[in-house]
Amino acid sequence: MRDLSQRLDLFSLNTATVRKQAPLDRIIEAVVAHGIRSIDPWRDQVQAVGLDRVARQIRDAGVRLSGYCRGGFYPALDAQGLAAALEDNRRAIDEATALSSPCLVLVVGSLPGAVAGKPQSIDIALARSQVRDGIAASLEYARNVGMPLAIEPLHPMQAAERACVNTLEQALDLCDELDPGRTGALGVALDAYHVWWDPKLAAQTKRAGAERLLAYHICDWLVPTRDLLNDRGMPGDGIIELRKLRRMVEATGYQGAVEIEIFSDAWWSRPMEEVLEVCISRFKSVA
Amino acid sequence: MRDLSQRLDLFSLNTATVRKQAPLDRIIEAVVAHGIRSIDPWRDQVQAVGLDRVARQIRDAGVRLSGYCRGGFYPALDAQGLAAALEDNRRAIDEATALSSPCLVLVVGSLPGAVAGKPQSIDIALARSQVRDGIAASLEYARNVGMPLAIEPLHPMQAAERACVNTLEQALDLCDELDPGRTGALGVALDAYHVWWDPKLAAQTKRAGAERLLAYHICDWLVPTRDLLNDRGMPGDGIIELRKLRRMVEATGYQGAVEIEIFSDAWWSRPMEEVLEVCISRFKSVA
Repeated sequence: MRDLSQRLDLFSLNTATVRKQAPLDRIIEAVVAHGIRSIDPWRDQVQAVGLDRVARQIRDAGVRLSGYCRGGFYPALDAQGLAAALEDNRRAIDEATALSSPCLVLVVGSLPGAVAGKPQSIDIALARSQVRDGIAASLEYARNVGMPLAIEPLHPMQAAERACVNTLEQALDLCDELDPGRTGALGVALDAYHVWWDPKLAAQTKRAGAERLLAYHICDWLVPTRDLLNDRGMPGDGIIELRKLRRMVEATGYQGAVEIEIFSDAWWSRPMEEVLEVCISRFKSVA
Repeated sequence: MRDLSQRLDLFSLNTATVRKQAPLDRIIEAVVAHGIRSIDPWRDQVQAVGLDRVARQIRDAGVRLSGYCRGGFYPALDAQGLAAALEDNRRAIDEATALSSPCLVLVVGSLPGAVAGKPQSIDIALARSQVRDGIAASLEYARNVGMPLAIEPLHPMQAAERACVNTLEQALDLCDELDPGRTGALGVALDAYHVWWDPKLAAQTKRAGAERLLAYHICDWLVPTRDLLNDRGMPGDGIIELRKLRRMVEATGYQGAVEIEIFSDAWWSRPMEEVLEVCISRFKSVA
């Protein structure tokens, strides 16, 4: 197991962690000032600053991406909606390519309209079938441009709104179906927050192997958790066995970054500098 | 699939649904006045009125139990705590017997202290091992008195505090390990709220079969859900495919009650009469 205490080069900041404090260009400046070499930005953050400008800024600063958030959201009520989702995913793949990301993270979506609070369908089996077909279509395009796709299984409490892929096993079943040759074109983004509870986590992490583990995200599960979306904890403040989980992940041969990704009203309300310092400190001591 | 519109005899009210409106004896009076013949009471509600008195009241009124909530909470920090949990479960089994319940529902517990907001351990594998051993010990006692135990898998968002058994598959694995003969002594309580998201739900419900399906609970998943514990919806107000799920359950040969169990600050704040009327109406039209 890698000793992270002196390995800031293995740390990546998911820039959603400080999305409310500053635009992406200022986040990148702050990240560089703290010696952080890797980020995972969100599409809306990139768009707000401009893709070309972000691409130039990270190149000039020597900052790499550990992933790009996020494609997906395939399910729709009609053919037009399904086609629009595929087109949007092609754009996301192109953006990830322009930013030299090692993968595009897919939050696959679920019941159409649910994320806006107005579900227009309750057929989750249909959503799952649309997700399968959508990933298959995106994969064809992504293979051609050499951009790996990382399916992120989301916690079951987000199954209605954000993703109908809710376990690592389910994500790996999709990978095996769509990329049986384990070519590296399709894998998973494993986020401790979403999977820590899973009784099959150890077995499925082993099954994934380094070929399928394209990204590893961490934060912590607070007790009690007061909000289903924006009450994630800083690593060390909750009950996820982060060292045990990282040992499982690294036992596969995973060599990639350990990315901190926190959605939290509490951390969004603190100064960016403070959040970055705490992230770095917890990365070294807890992750 | 059974037509429930004229089958109020198949309806059961989990009395937690109106726990803030009235004590159990008054709930039973109201239930009887509405023609409801079956309830699933909680231990604290029974204790507040007195076990003998509740036993007499339901016998005189011709009210049956569809289950008794709840045993479990096995994990503990030390041998004394583990032994106390077993003793408490023996009492729960005796109470269920005194009330002629068809089963005792087990919410198995998880990280010691977490339900009080102060987790004293983060070792969920240890909790799971203690749960296994605890159920095995309770089962020995329960077999002797003829009281079936129904393991209730809880939604993964309650994995830290309330139950480290979080999927139907995991619960059935425990059943197969501890009761390989499918004797009827050990099974599951299937609650739609906890399992609707599970991609393996259909396959595992079939696997359970009527021998393992000892209780079937429903409510609904609201979009958005604003609280991890007390924001359950009335059947029909959310996105769970309740008819599809009941079809799966009844395809096994399940003949038991359909129990409505709602924890909801919104419904607890309404008059008991109104809640009972809405439950009956939704049972007939939606369940």
